[in-house]
Amino acid sequence: MADVRQMETLTRDESLYLLGSVPLGRVVFTHLALPAIRPVYHLVEGDQIIIRAHLGAAITADDGPAGGTVVAYEADMINPLDHLGWSVIVVGRARNVSDAEADSRYRQALPQWTAGSPDDIIIIQADLVDGFRLIPSGD
Amino acid sequence: MADVRQMETLTRDESLYLLGSVPLGRVVFTHLALPAIRPVYHLVEGDQIIIRAHLGAAITADDGPAGGTVVAYEADMINPLDHLGWSVIVVGRARNVSDAEADSRYRQALPQWTAGSPDDIIIIQADLVDGFRLIPSGD
Repeated sequence: MADVRQMETLTRDESLYLLGSVPLGRVVFTHLALPAIRPVYHLVEGDQIIIRAHLGAAITADDGPAGGTVVAYEADMINPLDHLGWSVIVVGRARNVSDAEADSRYRQALPQWTAGSPDDIIIIQADLVDGFRLIPSGD
Repeated sequence: MADVRQMETLTRDESLYLLGSVPLGRVVFTHLALPAIRPVYHLVEGDQIIIRAHLGAAITADDGPAGGTVVAYEADMINPLDHLGWSVIVVGRARNVSDAEADSRYRQALPQWTAGSPDDIIIIQADLVDGFRLIPSGD
């Protein structure tokens, strides 16, 4: 029984919908030439993932001329008992939000990680979106 | 009420203990020069994180002479309502398990992601271990 699952690929729309249904994910970036990951809170608005992170400077540090460091973003909801659930992975360019009104609005909507710690609002453009669902096998 | 939390740094032992208390985490690596992340099942044995992943070849693809690609590994348990919980992040070298007996033992212990998909057992040496706990603020 333990291993009768199959993987079903999700559409882009299904993936972004599921991502938006949970509050928390993990942003993946490169820091000091090493792979780095931090859990953060997010919102999904259209093709954009908005996160609030206090390592923002490091995440968007090597902004190139194309405007944006490439990061990955992941959220999942997998049941530890039956191993069913889903995972969504986004890859795209990240940049600090530049508009003061938007910055303020996102700060209202996204919880702060800890009281009083300075943080940044970062927008990830969802260039690549991959998602899958683990469902019971038909066998 | 929403933002009265503070962050408490965990010791290395506390971090590895908490990591071992959950079955699932996310491995972070570089694939085709882009940041990549996959949810996987894990075991913790001493200073080693053992995972079962079907992108093993990509995770350990650029094994250097020092023997091992550097990856990150993360697990967390954060309550979406009160935002309290913990996160542990490990950084270290990853390599495919070479011993047939160990490979077989880990395959017994770690669930397969989906039925019948080929996968690899990968050992991550926990070189750097960082963990924190989010606790209610004393204020």
